[in-house]
Amino acid sequence: MTHIASGPISPAQQAVEEELVTAVVASFSQTNDGRLRLLMQSLTRHLHAFIREVRLTEEEWHAAIEFLTAAGHITDDKRQEFVLLSDVLGVSMQTIAVNNPAYENATEATVFGPFFTENSPKIPLGGDIAHGAVGQPCWVEGYVTDTRGTRIAGARIEVWECDEDGFYDVQYPDGRCAGRAHLYTDSDGAYRFWGLTPVPYPIPSDGPVGKLLDSVGRSPVRASHLHFMVAADGMRTLVTHIFVAGDPQITVGDSVFGVKDSLIKEFEQQQPDTRPPDGRDLGGRPWARVRFDIVLAPVSP
Amino acid sequence: MTHIASGPISPAQQAVEEELVTAVVASFSQTNDGRLRLLMQSLTRHLHAFIREVRLTEEEWHAAIEFLTAAGHITDDKRQEFVLLSDVLGVSMQTIAVNNPAYENATEATVFGPFFTENSPKIPLGGDIAHGAVGQPCWVEGYVTDTRGTRIAGARIEVWECDEDGFYDVQYPDGRCAGRAHLYTDSDGAYRFWGLTPVPYPIPSDGPVGKLLDSVGRSPVRASHLHFMVAADGMRTLVTHIFVAGDPQITVGDSVFGVKDSLIKEFEQQQPDTRPPDGRDLGGRPWARVRFDIVLAPVSP
Repeated sequence: MTHIASGPISPAQQAVEEELVTAVVASFSQTNDGRLRLLMQSLTRHLHAFIREVRLTEEEWHAAIEFLTAAGHITDDKRQEFVLLSDVLGVSMQTIAVNNPAYENATEATVFGPFFTENSPKIPLGGDIAHGAVGQPCWVEGYVTDTRGTRIAGARIEVWECDEDGFYDVQYPDGRCAGRAHLYTDSDGAYRFWGLTPVPYPIPSDGPVGKLLDSVGRSPVRASHLHFMVAADGMRTLVTHIFVAGDPQITVGDSVFGVKDSLIKEFEQQQPDTRPPDGRDLGGRPWARVRFDIVLAPVSP
Repeated sequence: MTHIASGPISPAQQAVEEELVTAVVASFSQTNDGRLRLLMQSLTRHLHAFIREVRLTEEEWHAAIEFLTAAGHITDDKRQEFVLLSDVLGVSMQTIAVNNPAYENATEATVFGPFFTENSPKIPLGGDIAHGAVGQPCWVEGYVTDTRGTRIAGARIEVWECDEDGFYDVQYPDGRCAGRAHLYTDSDGAYRFWGLTPVPYPIPSDGPVGKLLDSVGRSPVRASHLHFMVAADGMRTLVTHIFVAGDPQITVGDSVFGVKDSLIKEFEQQQPDTRPPDGRDLGGRPWARVRFDIVLAPVSP
């Protein structure tokens, strides 16, 4: 019962299709919540425009239903395939972009990702977020300011990242809490901590989203990054990453479109015999250091 | 970290958003399957256009993820929430429209629905599809022809419908097969059978789709109908319903947008003492009759 339409669409056929769009849009006209009405009517128009533009076949419609069903069935408390889908379609990043418009010289936002957890341990300035997560030690430091350069004391900085095997703590079955922490800027707006030099890792690719990426010849790998969430009174909370300058995955393409040029930072590799800023004994291991100055936009520009 | 943007979007912000769309579209450029490439690139453009048009908030994005997750979790072998979602957004009907373009005087198609099953019993001409399904007996008859009026012998007609309580056989837990059958037109292209006078029924409304319909003030009820699928050599298989003239739900709005004027038929109520066409003894019950002449389009017009 399916064929791919060829040739021009007749005016009569176009009228049938447009009449249906009008009917579906009208079906939402009784929605009390004006915002929900707007969302559903706009979603309807764009979904129907897609179907009509590509002349979606019934087999393709069935494949879409099967894809969504498989995504729903692999999703549980620990695995969120719909977030992955949103990520690889750039939908997450576009939502971030729309809600965090560029503001003067404020630090740019990027995707939140699925690996943040509440209740990370608090560490002192200069503390270590690893808590057993393995990887190259990396000294991270900088200032938090507003867009006029005024330093912000007591800003809350959440950081989280994967270990050198590419796994976040929550991806291990043992309930560990590692590679994440929060700390506060000092009275001068400065912060510093020991993290791990970020490494690239693939997003979970054993489900329908991984299959999709494979079908379209795309890498599931995320460019190496360290997550930040920075909050201070009166300022727009910043969710972002920093990326590692020279990571080849930046050129290949970050699988979730999170990279922004302004977020690519030099992670300077240090010789094992170089003394760290805090004099810590690293047991002769090589280490890295990076500087990331964070500029927050006001809540109401 | 979320706000609804107000005022015009700055050119710089528009450039950021457009650059992201370009990057996501480009990420599919290595897809070997040209059709898949076209689908993913078009889907990307339309999804991003939606997000940008409505300035989707991060809370709304989260609500969408939760909605899809709930839909995935309620979906199983017997319940398909994603099909329901597609139905109530008119996506199913638009896909039908695109794939079954109007062709001369051919009978119009409508939604397939989730209640078709393979292996329905074969009945003879004039047989009864009820097999225990309760409801008012309804005599259904007509001819199957091509668009030039040539009668088609041996056309296969599948019919299925709910019982008078609004449930299809597959919605009962006892594995019954009732209210469905298939039969073939005779040498003159005629068919006739006993069905049940259709009644309105709600689509399953105890899941996220039902909640959505409730939020937007829409009825989950489908206009009364009897399903047909008609196949014959060299002809485009027709999937359609007939609807009951005078059913108030046609005015309220069929919840899946399946109604077409040409598919609304007079179901003529008969007095209990009126003799049925085949002389069957209905035990003094009232009954109805309807005529539905079916016109098939050729496979390759």
